[in-house]
Amino acid sequence: MSAVPGCVLCEGPGGRLVFEGAKLRVIHAQEAGFPAFYRVVWTAHAPEFSDLDTADRVLCMEAVAVVEQCLREHLQPAKINLAALGNMVAHLHWHVIARFADDSHFPGSVWAGAQRERDAVREAQVAARLPAAEAAMIERLGRMGGQGN
Amino acid sequence: MSAVPGCVLCEGPGGRLVFEGAKLRVIHAQEAGFPAFYRVVWTAHAPEFSDLDTADRVLCMEAVAVVEQCLREHLQPAKINLAALGNMVAHLHWHVIARFADDSHFPGSVWAGAQRERDAVREAQVAARLPAAEAAMIERLGRMGGQGN
Repeated sequence: MSAVPGCVLCEGPGGRLVFEGAKLRVIHAQEAGFPAFYRVVWTAHAPEFSDLDTADRVLCMEAVAVVEQCLREHLQPAKINLAALGNMVAHLHWHVIARFADDSHFPGSVWAGAQRERDAVREAQVAARLPAAEAAMIERLGRMGGQGN
Repeated sequence: MSAVPGCVLCEGPGGRLVFEGAKLRVIHAQEAGFPAFYRVVWTAHAPEFSDLDTADRVLCMEAVAVVEQCLREHLQPAKINLAALGNMVAHLHWHVIARFADDSHFPGSVWAGAQRERDAVREAQVAARLPAAEAAMIERLGRMGGQGN
């Protein structure tokens, strides 16, 4: 599907671009309180996951798994959260969020209310490890071959 | 991985069982306010999506796509929401939720605060169409072959 006027994910990257392939990109979402919040954005405007054919769904989720694995290896989070909601921006994007036991919302979702104050020192510690995690993402996504890159 | 004592998704179905295959099951989650809330639960105790190998990830997400497609075809929701969070129950389960423009939380996530009152009449209308959606899920998941069923 071609770009849809007014769709923020058709008209711009939607965050700091980490990786851009032929069919998808990875962005750092820059969401306050969640330093390790990434999104895998499908390039074409598809509202729902099942709008993709099987091969594209596999490619998309393998990219999600790569981002997840790199965050796990470099940040040792308490949990990874994955979600494709799209209620406000109905252009397929997967949230991939490394969650920590001391983050402001854990164990609630990032969309629920805060359970404690943010910890700027901890957030900075996480942020300091993102360049290495992103280098690993770029390397592995680039190896996915003629589909992702 | 074998069953983990104390894990509610190792020890029970976690909702009303709709489909049970060799490696995964589909349950109706019975969450108040969201009549079309399903979960694809991986049978083995795996905390994270990337704990599965590629073939199992494909199987898992194809089951998610089947549930999504059946909900779309039978309910015509405003949006499907997909999520694997697991902060409280770290046993891989995918939420597959049909959302409607007039549900209590739309366009917020089901984990955020309510935006309006629940509409019992609308919820009953959605619920009345679930048996047909579930029959379609069972039929298609059963056809996924020697992996899902």
